Amino acid sequence: MKIRIGIAGYGNLGKGVECALTKTDDMELVGVFTRRAPESLTTKTNAPVFHMDEAKNMTDAIDVMILCGGSANDLPRQTAEMAEYFNVIDSFDTHAKIPEHFERVDGVCRKSGKIAVISAGWDPGMFSLNRLLGQAILPEGNDYTFWGKGVSQGHSDAIRRIKGVADGKQYTIPVEEALNRVRNGENPTLTTRQKHIRECFVVPEEGADLAAIEEAIKTMPNYFADYDTIVHFISQEELDRDHSGIPHGGMVFRTGKTGLNNEHSHVIEYRLKLDSNPEFTAGVLVACARAAYRLGKEGEVGCRTIFDIAPAYLHPSDPRELRQKLL
Amino acid sequence: MKIRIGIAGYGNLGKGVECALTKTDDMELVGVFTRRAPESLTTKTNAPVFHMDEAKNMTDAIDVMILCGGSANDLPRQTAEMAEYFNVIDSFDTHAKIPEHFERVDGVCRKSGKIAVISAGWDPGMFSLNRLLGQAILPEGNDYTFWGKGVSQGHSDAIRRIKGVADGKQYTIPVEEALNRVRNGENPTLTTRQKHIRECFVVPEEGADLAAIEEAIKTMPNYFADYDTIVHFISQEELDRDHSGIPHGGMVFRTGKTGLNNEHSHVIEYRLKLDSNPEFTAGVLVACARAAYRLGKEGEVGCRTIFDIAPAYLHPSDPRELRQKLL
Repeated sequence: MKIRIGIAGYGNLGKGVECALTKTDDMELVGVFTRRAPESLTTKTNAPVFHMDEAKNMTDAIDVMILCGGSANDLPRQTAEMAEYFNVIDSFDTHAKIPEHFERVDGVCRKSGKIAVISAGWDPGMFSLNRLLGQAILPEGNDYTFWGKGVSQGHSDAIRRIKGVADGKQYTIPVEEALNRVRNGENPTLTTRQKHIRECFVVPEEGADLAAIEEAIKTMPNYFADYDTIVHFISQEELDRDHSGIPHGGMVFRTGKTGLNNEHSHVIEYRLKLDSNPEFTAGVLVACARAAYRLGKEGEVGCRTIFDIAPAYLHPSDPRELRQKLL
Repeated sequence: MKIRIGIAGYGNLGKGVECALTKTDDMELVGVFTRRAPESLTTKTNAPVFHMDEAKNMTDAIDVMILCGGSANDLPRQTAEMAEYFNVIDSFDTHAKIPEHFERVDGVCRKSGKIAVISAGWDPGMFSLNRLLGQAILPEGNDYTFWGKGVSQGHSDAIRRIKGVADGKQYTIPVEEALNRVRNGENPTLTTRQKHIRECFVVPEEGADLAAIEEAIKTMPNYFADYDTIVHFISQEELDRDHSGIPHGGMVFRTGKTGLNNEHSHVIEYRLKLDSNPEFTAGVLVACARAAYRLGKEGEVGCRTIFDIAPAYLHPSDPRELRQKLL
């Protein structure tokens, strides 16, 4: 008997979950739920499509609902609503609002008797886990998180809002020198500018003032002003040809000292190099769905994050086999 | 009220645990237990020393006993014995015998009502955890584990047993080309020789036959024959001056494909660069001791590994704070 999964929301992340499920032996996709007209949507695997409102009539058919909406508008409401009916997983990534989101979803779960895993993915998610583990093992030390090379959706959107810009994409890139200093255990104090470069590929509208666009990007507060920013003007064809992917990644470091006189240095580095940000995130969500299902079977109730899940729950093999083969 | 820790065994690892405890705010060292004459031993922090046989009379004074003996002779017996009286942590690292060790310790714990965490450290330990997580997130892919650059105690011992060798040390070194191929997502199939180099620093006895020593090392089955091995002859002074440390480390990779047609590649890399192998291992043991104490307080009983512990148990902060600051 396989774990029966529903996908709520069918953008890049929802499609990623659909693909990720084809790589599991213990899970199956029951259907995709959308707020659009179901008949307007064709899924990659021909999975059935239902209207979002139908979900609550399908509680007997679905073990875990994976929410694939956005953190700004969808998840703050949707995760809690769905947790009335299903075990739920989301990738809520507005870091500052995670505690409040957690409390809300936890409250619903404790009434409905369901399990939720929120803020799953890689940051929040695997990066968070590595920050926690690094601090636990090396209490005296420093944390460093670098992002990229990868596409930042928020910064790409910001570029596209500038007058005279037809299209554009922004890459966040870690500064190699900063990475090397951290890897060498120098424990540097790094400014925003010293950690990341921002590289922009911009398609100007015909006759646009390129100098004005470049100036508008480089001086934009919060988004670009605190960084060294490189702007390239290219054609729409070039943008579509060379920059249509959604790669991302980055590194979490913990550098620390041990010994009675701090005489020994240690560097822990966790690094991701991802061709597809949403498909990797989907892999984490699916593993968390497995964990939620198993925790639910054991009678557990309430909201969880990756911090609260014993790792064995994420892997399809049983604990005995894991000890034998992976420990 | 702090978590009260005992250390059983006072070699490099025991000293590492003693140092690691000075970096925690929530734990204190009650004493070191030894099979030697207690008065013959002075600890780095002036912690009291007791004979190992006294431990069982101190069950009221100690919450968790951290076993710091060797996997070959001490732990197979000692962990189970101590688990009759204490929550216990060990770093048992004979991979093939872990299942049997687990069952034995689990059996004792279930009678005594204690918690054990076995095979904690970095391999087994953090490396194992990363193998598990990588497979769970990217089910279609390959695992690679590299060790080094670091000192292998077993190989150093093997060198010292050769006729004409006064002293010696062996470093295991990952082959850079192999690392690069894995990092590039090439998913190579690698032979033993392609993954690691072995570099030996040997102090010959006076008048020894250097060519014969080099030949004996390079052709030694299991230890060196399957590797490219470099042998340097140096003086005892040079060995003591340049090779007295116990550095180690390595990398665990998971490389995998996602997408309906495997069109996207991903690389996860977990890397350790450690100045002191035993002191880093000690950091993991101490974090696991915190987890064991907390699990015990919740009424949990039995043997665990890093696979079975929700990460939040390892960190001193409470879950609410962890969500706020690290997620």
